[in-house]
Amino acid sequence: STTGGDGDDNVDVAGAKSIYMVSDGTGWTVEHSVSAALGQFDHCLVDRGCPVNTHLFSGIDDVERLMEIVRQAAKDGAMLVYTLADPSMADSARQASKLWGIPSTDVLGPITEAIASHLGVVPSGLPRGAPGRSFPLTDEYFRRIEAIEFTIKQDDGALPQNLQKADIVLTGVSRTGKTPLSIYISQKGYKVANVPIVMGVELPKSLFEVDPEKVFGLTINPLVLQTIRKARAKSLGFSEETRSNYSEMDYVRDDLEHAGRIFAQNPVWPVIEVTGKAIEETAAVVLRLYNDRKQRCSMPRISKRY
Amino acid sequence: STTGGDGDDNVDVAGAKSIYMVSDGTGWTVEHSVSAALGQFDHCLVDRGCPVNTHLFSGIDDVERLMEIVRQAAKDGAMLVYTLADPSMADSARQASKLWGIPSTDVLGPITEAIASHLGVVPSGLPRGAPGRSFPLTDEYFRRIEAIEFTIKQDDGALPQNLQKADIVLTGVSRTGKTPLSIYISQKGYKVANVPIVMGVELPKSLFEVDPEKVFGLTINPLVLQTIRKARAKSLGFSEETRSNYSEMDYVRDDLEHAGRIFAQNPVWPVIEVTGKAIEETAAVVLRLYNDRKQRCSMPRISKRY
Ligand SMILES: Nc1ncnc2c1ncn2[C@@H]1O[C@H](COP(=O)(O)O)[C@@H](O)[C@H]1O
Ligand SMILES: Nc1ncnc2c1ncn2[C@@H]1O[C@H](COP(=O)(O)O)[C@@H](O)[C@H]1O
Ligand SMILES: [Mg+2]
Ligand SMILES: [Mg+2]
Repeated sequence: STTGGDGDDNVDVAGAKSIYMVSDGTGWTVEHSVSAALGQFDHCLVDRGCPVNTHLFSGIDDVERLMEIVRQAAKDGAMLVYTLADPSMADSARQASKLWGIPSTDVLGPITEAIASHLGVVPSGLPRGAPGRSFPLTDEYFRRIEAIEFTIKQDDGALPQNLQKADIVLTGVSRTGKTPLSIYISQKGYKVANVPIVMGVELPKSLFEVDPEKVFGLTINPLVLQTIRKARAKSLGFSEETRSNYSEMDYVRDDLEHAGRIFAQNPVWPVIEVTGKAIEETAAVVLRLYNDRKQRCSMPRISKRY
Repeated sequence: STTGGDGDDNVDVAGAKSIYMVSDGTGWTVEHSVSAALGQFDHCLVDRGCPVNTHLFSGIDDVERLMEIVRQAAKDGAMLVYTLADPSMADSARQASKLWGIPSTDVLGPITEAIASHLGVVPSGLPRGAPGRSFPLTDEYFRRIEAIEFTIKQDDGALPQNLQKADIVLTGVSRTGKTPLSIYISQKGYKVANVPIVMGVELPKSLFEVDPEKVFGLTINPLVLQTIRKARAKSLGFSEETRSNYSEMDYVRDDLEHAGRIFAQNPVWPVIEVTGKAIEETAAVVLRLYNDRKQRCSMPRISKRY
């Protein structure tokens, strides 16, 4: 329930409370954490009982700008949430907030300290992008970019001859979210291909030739699918006729039943219910299953090495 | 410096310390926070002085599985980092960790409590995806998906007639990261188009007809670009000849100079140096500039409404 995107010129709602978020880096970590925490207040955010404005200040690596932001936060009656790698900057944020009487929360410090004593290593205190920190062009970096580029090229059933090169293949009817899901997963370093299931269109042979353990079916509640298709047809400016066919309930049901039969014929493919799930939630389910199948661990997990 | 992607079967390095991450949701928030904090230990992670294994357990919404994970963490000599919306689950994680003698950090609790007292509202305590929480198909949701789909279709200079529909247009020579950057930004709800600058290929007229305030040039150090191109040419299996041309230093320099002249002729376009920046870092710079231009605020920020 954010506005995001277009950068609201006029973001301050009367009576809205403000959250100031400050980072010496990109700000994406603090934004992610605040956004998750705000999920705990959906019941009042949604009906506008307690609208909230967030303001993200990124790349803040000098104490003067930090102080200016804290002062402004105090004026706005805002709270402060920050990630500042330099301990003296983090201290300044804490102390200035106290001085100006605003609540403040350090998102990075507690985890960093816990990891430091776990590893027995002193943290660098250097923000990302600090001079002297060089960004290594690691294999991981190249692999991730390759995964994204692969995934874009395979979108919407393109290049079915390459399915075997994919780590993960998603399949389902139109508007089950295959494209955004593929993209989300690709950014985690997996090559994803997606293959649409369309009545009257033969599926590529290669879909049935690849390792079935990497194929995932997507399904969705017909009413929700209809809603999404109506919105889609409208935004694409489909003609009345195409539109009614594409999003008509009988057609929607037939489409899902047709996909259901294909899924039944391929029982190794897990079928994931996407109704009511955000893209990143479906991604979590896919990657959990994918990793379980690879690792066959007693306790399902996704592991990485740093 | 993560392995990511392919789901390592064999992730445990001898002597590596483990971090167990637990969420009742997707786990992406705790993973993001831990990954940022691990940036503070790059100096020892990179040279493998202190390798770290992370293990992400997502969708953990019952206390039995939680206890099992804590016990396993204790066996592995791991620390625990968690996001658990239900306060009784969070309590159990804290107490069990204490009992088993492992360090633990709550990532969600402190921010949620701070926001709760700031707003004067009690948090729901409901994990995302909990029964009864329905996912609203908001305008924001549709807009974001449309942005991703738009961005994929415009990749690599495709459909130049649509540049005017883009919120942001990225331009630069091959391998400046236009594609992954476009995708990253699109997921935040912006329609992004990217236009490659290639010597001997005319740029689309529309690039010079759109609002120049939404166009961003990307530039990069020639040596770094050469390294990236060499890796790229190899992975694409270019012939020796094409490869040497594409990644030869003289060609790389000419390419960048050619782009530099175009940037000089369009002084409104900011030129962003991507050398040494991760995709999300360049994205932060682009979005900061984009929002500043839109808002012309005294203090640059990115604002959202919840
Ligand atoms: N690779 C890294 N090296 C050092 N610090 C980092 C790294 N990534 C993130 N951080 C720090 O973690 C916090 C969150 O980063 P960001 O998400 O870029 O705002 C900031 O204080 C950054 O300086
Ligand atoms: N929209 C939401 N509503 C309620 N809780 C959420 C929401 N998004 C994230 N959370 C909670 O925030 C924490 C991090 O979420 P995740 O990133 O999915 O692991 C978990 O405890 C989730 O239950
Ligand atoms: Mg699609
Ligand atoms: Mg590209």
